[in-house]
Amino acid sequence: MKNTFGNSISITLFGESHGQEIGAVLDGIAPGIPVDEDFIRHQLSLRRPAGKISTARVESDPFRIVSGVFEGRTTGTPIAILIPNDNTKSKDYTPEIPRPGHADFSAECKYHGFQDYRGGGHFSGRVTAPLVAAGAILIAALRERGISIGTHICSLGTIRDRKFGDFSADFERLNQSNFPVLDDAIALQMKETVERAAAEGDSVGGVLETAVTGIEAGVGEPWFDSVESLLSHALFSVPGIKGVEFGDGFAMTSLRGSQANDAFRIEDGRIVTATNHNGGINGGITNGMPIVFRCAVKPTPSIFKSQQTVDLKRMENLDFSLQGRHDPAIIHRARVVVDSVTALVLCDLLALRHGTDWLREGEGRS
Amino acid sequence: MKNTFGNSISITLFGESHGQEIGAVLDGIAPGIPVDEDFIRHQLSLRRPAGKISTARVESDPFRIVSGVFEGRTTGTPIAILIPNDNTKSKDYTPEIPRPGHADFSAECKYHGFQDYRGGGHFSGRVTAPLVAAGAILIAALRERGISIGTHICSLGTIRDRKFGDFSADFERLNQSNFPVLDDAIALQMKETVERAAAEGDSVGGVLETAVTGIEAGVGEPWFDSVESLLSHALFSVPGIKGVEFGDGFAMTSLRGSQANDAFRIEDGRIVTATNHNGGINGGITNGMPIVFRCAVKPTPSIFKSQQTVDLKRMENLDFSLQGRHDPAIIHRARVVVDSVTALVLCDLLALRHGTDWLREGEGRS
Amino acid sequence: MKNTFGNSISITLFGESHGQEIGAVLDGIAPGIPVDEDFIRHQLSLRRPAGKISTARVESDPFRIVSGVFEGRTTGTPIAILIPNDNTKSKDYTPEIPRPGHADFSAECKYHGFQDYRGGGHFSGRVTAPLVAAGAILIAALRERGISIGTHICSLGTIRDRKFGDFSADFERLNQSNFPVLDDAIALQMKETVERAAAEGDSVGGVLETAVTGIEAGVGEPWFDSVESLLSHALFSVPGIKGVEFGDGFAMTSLRGSQANDAFRIEDGRIVTATNHNGGINGGITNGMPIVFRCAVKPTPSIFKSQQTVDLKRMENLDFSLQGRHDPAIIHRARVVVDSVTALVLCDLLALRHGTDWLREGEGRS
Amino acid sequence: MKNTFGNSISITLFGESHGQEIGAVLDGIAPGIPVDEDFIRHQLSLRRPAGKISTARVESDPFRIVSGVFEGRTTGTPIAILIPNDNTKSKDYTPEIPRPGHADFSAECKYHGFQDYRGGGHFSGRVTAPLVAAGAILIAALRERGISIGTHICSLGTIRDRKFGDFSADFERLNQSNFPVLDDAIALQMKETVERAAAEGDSVGGVLETAVTGIEAGVGEPWFDSVESLLSHALFSVPGIKGVEFGDGFAMTSLRGSQANDAFRIEDGRIVTATNHNGGINGGITNGMPIVFRCAVKPTPSIFKSQQTVDLKRMENLDFSLQGRHDPAIIHRARVVVDSVTALVLCDLLALRHGTDWLREGEGRS
Repeated sequence: MKNTFGNSISITLFGESHGQEIGAVLDGIAPGIPVDEDFIRHQLSLRRPAGKISTARVESDPFRIVSGVFEGRTTGTPIAILIPNDNTKSKDYTPEIPRPGHADFSAECKYHGFQDYRGGGHFSGRVTAPLVAAGAILIAALRERGISIGTHICSLGTIRDRKFGDFSADFERLNQSNFPVLDDAIALQMKETVERAAAEGDSVGGVLETAVTGIEAGVGEPWFDSVESLLSHALFSVPGIKGVEFGDGFAMTSLRGSQANDAFRIEDGRIVTATNHNGGINGGITNGMPIVFRCAVKPTPSIFKSQQTVDLKRMENLDFSLQGRHDPAIIHRARVVVDSVTALVLCDLLALRHGTDWLREGEGRS
Repeated sequence: MKNTFGNSISITLFGESHGQEIGAVLDGIAPGIPVDEDFIRHQLSLRRPAGKISTARVESDPFRIVSGVFEGRTTGTPIAILIPNDNTKSKDYTPEIPRPGHADFSAECKYHGFQDYRGGGHFSGRVTAPLVAAGAILIAALRERGISIGTHICSLGTIRDRKFGDFSADFERLNQSNFPVLDDAIALQMKETVERAAAEGDSVGGVLETAVTGIEAGVGEPWFDSVESLLSHALFSVPGIKGVEFGDGFAMTSLRGSQANDAFRIEDGRIVTATNHNGGINGGITNGMPIVFRCAVKPTPSIFKSQQTVDLKRMENLDFSLQGRHDPAIIHRARVVVDSVTALVLCDLLALRHGTDWLREGEGRS
Repeated sequence: MKNTFGNSISITLFGESHGQEIGAVLDGIAPGIPVDEDFIRHQLSLRRPAGKISTARVESDPFRIVSGVFEGRTTGTPIAILIPNDNTKSKDYTPEIPRPGHADFSAECKYHGFQDYRGGGHFSGRVTAPLVAAGAILIAALRERGISIGTHICSLGTIRDRKFGDFSADFERLNQSNFPVLDDAIALQMKETVERAAAEGDSVGGVLETAVTGIEAGVGEPWFDSVESLLSHALFSVPGIKGVEFGDGFAMTSLRGSQANDAFRIEDGRIVTATNHNGGINGGITNGMPIVFRCAVKPTPSIFKSQQTVDLKRMENLDFSLQGRHDPAIIHRARVVVDSVTALVLCDLLALRHGTDWLREGEGRS
Repeated sequence: MKNTFGNSISITLFGESHGQEIGAVLDGIAPGIPVDEDFIRHQLSLRRPAGKISTARVESDPFRIVSGVFEGRTTGTPIAILIPNDNTKSKDYTPEIPRPGHADFSAECKYHGFQDYRGGGHFSGRVTAPLVAAGAILIAALRERGISIGTHICSLGTIRDRKFGDFSADFERLNQSNFPVLDDAIALQMKETVERAAAEGDSVGGVLETAVTGIEAGVGEPWFDSVESLLSHALFSVPGIKGVEFGDGFAMTSLRGSQANDAFRIEDGRIVTATNHNGGINGGITNGMPIVFRCAVKPTPSIFKSQQTVDLKRMENLDFSLQGRHDPAIIHRARVVVDSVTALVLCDLLALRHGTDWLREGEGRS
């Protein structure tokens, strides 16, 4: 389905970096969900470049919700969210010179030269803005149902943040910060690393770690619609993500079974696991423990250092230095995109399980 | 879609470990593709337990193709593959005692006690057998179109295999072995590790690394049907996989952009990249280089060591020792499942791009 | 999705008329639904040829449910139903001579000669048998939730049955009869018409009228998943159906709006409509009145009279007389197929609205 | 998928009659297809009210294509089309009084009072405007590939148009007219009928007949994605359509098989059928003859005559007279919507068969 994702609840993305408008259509959401435009703005602000460490391109993201919301609540029909593109410098781009690490060359092969090549076109990270706006509605609704999502920069280059402690306090903190790190001193070191890379015309990547609390046991489908399958499907759609692991993930492969298995036990009348190596998911289905996963975000491909590439028209090798405004890191901006697609997948699975109206607490208006 | 996956080409899985039959329905495949039952048998043999290091349960997998194949070739209509279950000991299972690391508890929460709990039921790795049989048809067809897939045990516990060298020779070797490791000495060490774990009633995990050669540039869709999204969706459906990374994956996050970007250059009139940190995929679309990814396979949860779990009926904690026959490692058996779902995703994307009949070389019969 | 249909609940069909086995995989159904094999047998008997007026080919349909049912109830995982083919005469078929009115020529163009041409192959009405078996499970479950489906032969050739009266009594009667007509005298006339056509080596068609009672208001989705869209999608998949109309359908086009609109009124505290010209559906969504629709079933294309066709190999015109055993009417047999796909669509829409477990009354087993 | 339809090529609709904007996202279309905004405007003009016989509400439909088109051609990425709502009188609507024949009551039951009730909200025929704009791109592209679509008002009330003669000339004529009737004298009678109904505060319905020429044999999928299944799915999504029949449809049910079967014969080296009772489709697959189908369009439910309905808040019966501006007939306006969804389904099936790029004639740009 290409630019549409989801079963019971789905999202459709459209737009190009330098086109007229970008947008998203969110379909299947329960009627009666409050839509708080301030919270959408807050979430969009988390995606926006943050001071020195991000691109100089100002993205004010003045979104418009043109359908599916009436008198402050969802109607149950598709919610179309639009964000105009206004601050673009199209002259910076040359279609015949594909930027290493970007989709330019792949897109050329796929679209035979008809793609809008300006600023990465449809492959631009900018298209995540309406996804974040849509995600904000879902994140807020999930929170009302007791389900919370939090993501921190678990590592940036080789610098590592502390682990999650008290989820509730940690999420609170992360969801207010546009550089989501649990330890302040570590955050400072990470920012310095980004700035150092920027000063050298280079960029850095890192790992995001996400936790979801309050999710019931029994969510997800066997085989192809496992929680891991659907989450990874959505996560790998986020530009720059090259790895996804659940629970202990790759580290689990050097454990023995006796170490990796999460023992069940009864705690306050509820069944919990003593450890959470499996990240809250067994057999693709939630077990009631927090869902935990990590995403590898590659270093931003847009760098100012000279790189080797080719001229597709002349079929010649050449050295190339990128002009314009570019982020030396996008990991802190990718965070809210990860939270958004996570909310989408969970809302979809929960709506399949409990029905369309589940997401809304309480009865109808009339 | 739960147990169905794919767009243009799809697969539907059914069956339980101790039910009557397990099976798969493969739909959308081009008419006229040769179906070599010997090759299917070969692929199934790669999934079967291998001597000392695997379960004593004999799985002879006498599959039947009951539709969609006529006079040795695909008809273009759904191919149903069935494998009977005959060698099962149902008395080994107790539904009220969920095994740690397994889907037992999750399934109980999802299905409210109505699931077939015997041997993991529908969550059993056994259900991958018909998936492998279906995959064999696709793997053989892709090979005819110049596309090859190979997977090795990249690491088992802490022991690491050598990297891929000559893909063609390496694939040849791997695809004949039921313990797919490139370096013979390493293979020996890995087997010893498995046997040591087995002797202690324990199990091990590892990492599988897959490469796909011969794939054209321009395959995949932007955003939600990126090659990474679709492959990871399918891969995380394989039991035991807890991590998936493309190209350098998580290791890429400690590189600078200038190191991680794959420079383009012209080689023999073709555009290639000097390195392949991105695993053959940029912006979710193939760039013509080999697709490379790795899957983290957790240690088999079925171990004989005593573990803590609960009795769901009595709501009591208890210690539990698994009886029966179980694998101390499944990574070598998971390999051919990984190859199969990889073939499925690639055939689907290629059929969407080039049309239904693409997979068949040559013209119609009549 | 070709041979798979449905969102929350889906069915996948496979098999050829003269292949090894035909079957269906029903996925997404709630766990804990009772599966009554006698009722399945009953429903299959309604699809079977009935005495003089149907084909001499005996179809005993000894189905096997090989997965998804455990201790007499659905598990929540895919239910695979298989029916072997055993009583076939393959020598009756010549692939190079397409039968008029059949899929032979279309299939040849689509599958380039690789299709299994025997007995219509995958296009055979025989493939509806597993669909009926799957439908039986759903029909029985809907009945437990107060939703009933009944279909009669509304007209056969130019003979018309009486209209529905007391739905409950009429359904009772129809669901026990393998020639479903409300008026006994009319039934006799219809059978005579079929026999007369048979005696002349010819065949007849007719119109099936279906009613669904007990369906709540508010079911269905706007635009592309309207009740009419989904039902017609499924209904036009049934071989021989060439027309579908809801409510007064085509007859509605000669009414004025003031005649066609169904006035709302309050009756016993419930909102009902005074008439039901719209067949229980407004804007694609149920309004709580019975759903009513009619299907045009064309005369069976298999006739013994000489017909003109072509020899595809020699590219010559020729006259052709069909041999073998064929039905002079299939309308009475198509009835239970219509009921089955109707149940499938309604279960799917209701599961989307109310969640996976809705179809099961009562709590879990454990 | 609710408001999204299609497999390889899909459309997503959003918007409410009195919301900010309505729109459509068309995804999966080949890159390089010319987009002629004048032709889109022409198609939209065919949907617009025509003089006396239609609503006084002026719909100028100043659409904007905000993505997916670059330098006059499709890019291959999603095409978002937006149409603002500006000429609306929201005060005309009272949510507690559902209009007979409309979706008001069904929507109330579905959305629990949260729906945007103004002017039918998301159920308004107005939402077909972006569908027509999207369809225009596809209709023009199909024409370049030799596939033409034409629809006439086959009957209005009891007045019947002549049958199709020379498809090419007839289509030419129909596609230029906003009251598509083949016989001028009949057109006049039909218009008088509409005006007479309007004068009495009433409305009329009719039957649209569509033909598609130039379509190859072998298009469509067996069972659930038959040409009839997909077309009817899309057609029944168009507001007001209550019946769909292919070929002779319901009339076929009073023919004998010997009359209804279309004999094959060779004509100029091509295989054709002597008659076309099956409407160009056998077994759900095209046979190379023109596709022919008819849609029953019910009389417009919005009438000025007094009607019985209920007050949902007070739960009282009441008499009700509609105010505002309303069409006494929509059949002539529905025509271009039917053409648009027909183009969508055919493009989708052809793209699945021949691949993404099929719709574009010629090679890439670069």
